Amino acid sequence: MEIALKELARVVGGEVSGDDSVMIGGVAGIKEARPGDITFLANPRYEKFMDSTQASAVIVSPGTSGRGKPLILSDNPYLSFVKAVEFFVPNKNHYPRVIHPGAVISDSASVGSGVAVGACAVIEDGVRIGDGTVILPGVFVGRDAEIGADCLVYPNATIRDEVKIGNRVIIHGGAVIGSDGFGFAKDGEVYRKIPQIGNVVIEDDVEIGANVTIDRAATGTTYVGKGTKIDNLVQIAHNVVIRENCILVAQVGIGGTTEIGKGATLAGQAGAAGHIKIGDGAVVAAQAGVTKSVPAGTMVSGYPAREHSQAKRIYASFQKLPDLLKRVADLGERLAKIEERLKQ
Amino acid sequence: MEIALKELARVVGGEVSGDDSVMIGGVAGIKEARPGDITFLANPRYEKFMDSTQASAVIVSPGTSGRGKPLILSDNPYLSFVKAVEFFVPNKNHYPRVIHPGAVISDSASVGSGVAVGACAVIEDGVRIGDGTVILPGVFVGRDAEIGADCLVYPNATIRDEVKIGNRVIIHGGAVIGSDGFGFAKDGEVYRKIPQIGNVVIEDDVEIGANVTIDRAATGTTYVGKGTKIDNLVQIAHNVVIRENCILVAQVGIGGTTEIGKGATLAGQAGAAGHIKIGDGAVVAAQAGVTKSVPAGTMVSGYPAREHSQAKRIYASFQKLPDLLKRVADLGERLAKIEERLKQ
Amino acid sequence: MEIALKELARVVGGEVSGDDSVMIGGVAGIKEARPGDITFLANPRYEKFMDSTQASAVIVSPGTSGRGKPLILSDNPYLSFVKAVEFFVPNKNHYPRVIHPGAVISDSASVGSGVAVGACAVIEDGVRIGDGTVILPGVFVGRDAEIGADCLVYPNATIRDEVKIGNRVIIHGGAVIGSDGFGFAKDGEVYRKIPQIGNVVIEDDVEIGANVTIDRAATGTTYVGKGTKIDNLVQIAHNVVIRENCILVAQVGIGGTTEIGKGATLAGQAGAAGHIKIGDGAVVAAQAGVTKSVPAGTMVSGYPAREHSQAKRIYASFQKLPDLLKRVADLGERLAKIEERLKQ
Repeated sequence: MEIALKELARVVGGEVSGDDSVMIGGVAGIKEARPGDITFLANPRYEKFMDSTQASAVIVSPGTSGRGKPLILSDNPYLSFVKAVEFFVPNKNHYPRVIHPGAVISDSASVGSGVAVGACAVIEDGVRIGDGTVILPGVFVGRDAEIGADCLVYPNATIRDEVKIGNRVIIHGGAVIGSDGFGFAKDGEVYRKIPQIGNVVIEDDVEIGANVTIDRAATGTTYVGKGTKIDNLVQIAHNVVIRENCILVAQVGIGGTTEIGKGATLAGQAGAAGHIKIGDGAVVAAQAGVTKSVPAGTMVSGYPAREHSQAKRIYASFQKLPDLLKRVADLGERLAKIEERLKQ
Repeated sequence: MEIALKELARVVGGEVSGDDSVMIGGVAGIKEARPGDITFLANPRYEKFMDSTQASAVIVSPGTSGRGKPLILSDNPYLSFVKAVEFFVPNKNHYPRVIHPGAVISDSASVGSGVAVGACAVIEDGVRIGDGTVILPGVFVGRDAEIGADCLVYPNATIRDEVKIGNRVIIHGGAVIGSDGFGFAKDGEVYRKIPQIGNVVIEDDVEIGANVTIDRAATGTTYVGKGTKIDNLVQIAHNVVIRENCILVAQVGIGGTTEIGKGATLAGQAGAAGHIKIGDGAVVAAQAGVTKSVPAGTMVSGYPAREHSQAKRIYASFQKLPDLLKRVADLGERLAKIEERLKQ
Repeated sequence: MEIALKELARVVGGEVSGDDSVMIGGVAGIKEARPGDITFLANPRYEKFMDSTQASAVIVSPGTSGRGKPLILSDNPYLSFVKAVEFFVPNKNHYPRVIHPGAVISDSASVGSGVAVGACAVIEDGVRIGDGTVILPGVFVGRDAEIGADCLVYPNATIRDEVKIGNRVIIHGGAVIGSDGFGFAKDGEVYRKIPQIGNVVIEDDVEIGANVTIDRAATGTTYVGKGTKIDNLVQIAHNVVIRENCILVAQVGIGGTTEIGKGATLAGQAGAAGHIKIGDGAVVAAQAGVTKSVPAGTMVSGYPAREHSQAKRIYASFQKLPDLLKRVADLGERLAKIEERLKQ
């Protein structure tokens, strides 16, 4: 399928600058694009590829130099590119909606219409699965769990008993949702397990990465709000509450009972202690170690995490430390000489 | 089932303060509890909920103000709460003890009595499984592995060949036990795999979290001692030795051949280098990077990990660094002026 | 099987020092070895075990004191030990090359000769599997994926659609290859998923650890070069390029589009930001946080990662900080006194 750049600009939202009759038949990244493709430029680091890209057109922010290339000017080039991908690339998740004869589904499970269940997936007693949901091979869904409509659960994920999952949720391979929280009471030298009798609730439009772990609550609910996106290998402990539209990048860890406000972002490998609150819209930098609550709208970084501009000054000062030690030793010697002289 | 508070105090260990005839029918966290429930207060942070909780009684430490609520006074409120949960909540792990027809079990495997094996679980040649153990769907147990009695292995866990697991061990979903250690010998530019011919031994009463990885030894044994509890996404390298009753919180990583003494605790995202020893009862703070051995009974934190009170002083001093640099520059200028003046 | 030390020296590459007629029948670590075994000494920390080991001979570097034990002197004792292991220990990966009747293989998949596919493994439409490859139980291989010859895929791994894997690749249990990259465009308050339409290419002789996650590219390819070895629980984001013969130790995380040069090493729990380049042969220390590109051949450590010798000086200076603060305060007071006096 080919479409004139002029038409495509309407689909993706933007205005053409340059030849609006050029025909576009596909999408690709700026380095991989070939003639006939449209690409995009959102990260200024890649501006250097504007000259070398073979793309026939580029989606850019207004004000970007086009080097003679036809452009679509968009206030949100990344979002316009998403719309272009959705236009050109058939949805790869169109799995045939069939129940594989090798799936193992309890008679007491309730499965909606247009549902796919792959080979060797196991759906236990009392499970409810909404219309249009795709459960791929090797997935386990435990007793009385609920999965909404139009979800996509990738292979070998484990969804334990009583977990409740909303609509249009995507769960990647190997994720484990509803495992026991890590709770033990010390009884002399030994640790005695605290039964974890709560559950997990995942709201609509959440995405959960590969090999993520989300523990069930000790009592009550571990909660992930609508639209939150969780990257691979993230750990979410029992009774954590994550509000809507948060971003948790890969390998983040959240301690028990901590609350993450709406629209907050935690970058890769960051950790948050238990029993704290990270405010709405807060940003936690990569590898930061958050030991106390973070006010709404604040960016923090470093260990222990501090307000980011303060942390930046601190971390920048590190490289002056070895020299500082020498200078202070030198000042001490000079001062002692003066004191000696003035004594006389 | 309802029981008078007076009776419940005997079950959970403690003395009643206030009305001992109040009837209790369930347990819940302090925020979720409803009338008829008993809850507990172990973390002082939650004392503020004492007024608002709907619980009919609260388990507390002696000396806690009850705000007029009936109390059970216990020296270990957390442990008493565990006993209350065990009393009121039926064991959720009572899986029916049946071999699912979709399980794949080698003829040469030895399976005890009262064992459950779920659909699509695969039990290979020479495996031995003790009485009362539950193997849930999608679990793999490799050749000649041994699993003791009354264990619970959650879905999609992988237990490789020759791994030995004791009694009452709990293994959560997606955990991999007995994967090859990460060992390579450099042969010119390329890395040549060192066959990992050892095994893994897990003692009684260990709990292993979701998506944990425990590598088999190069030669000999990777060892996890009795009663040790391991949280989600922890990495344990080849030939590591972990003694009894340790706590490894989520995303901890332990380098090869390192030994963790009994009763030690490693908090979330902490890492320990290979070939070191962390002493009995030592505590490693969250995100700490342990680069050398830690004496018994010592708490360490930071990167590189130092004795905790020293590390706290260091990390507290960070915020004075930008100001310190200015002050030293100022001292230098003032000193130079004096030197200049004294020269005259 | 027993062999004289003289013969064994030829097999493993080295020269005998001492009695070359001693018979050797097995291999083991220096602590576990028994009479009749050969062991090795590569790490000087273990030299103390030279006296106590029961091994009948030891592979060492030239110049090591043998304490009267027969030795094989080798320029690369670790590599010689690998050869000894390969000589004495039968290859444990000799899985019978059969297709289990409980495997689920699409009619349109192409499976080579001498291939094993375990029970409950699922091979989807259009998959191609090369000769001699072993796919263990519970593995998922998605549509149109390709796996080369003589690979070994451990249980419950997930290989998604269109992933391309070379020859002699080892993939450990629970690894997920080809999951969607973590890409979202902000559309007002909500995040809109960017379809991830690229793939993953894994070259020959790569090893991928347990529960590793490697995301498919947004567009184009996420790439892992020949001979690279990846430890457990490592995260590789979309469009990352890793060149040949790299080492990524456990729990490392690599941000999107970052490039790792050939022969680079990232130690445990290190993280690299997205859109940077780590040069050929660079070394990133454990837990380091790499925020900008690293030149070839450079070692970096700390957060933010700096050239290692500089970082070492900085981190060593930390312990002098609390004292430094006191000294500077003291200098300030003494200087003020002098200024006061000179004013008079």
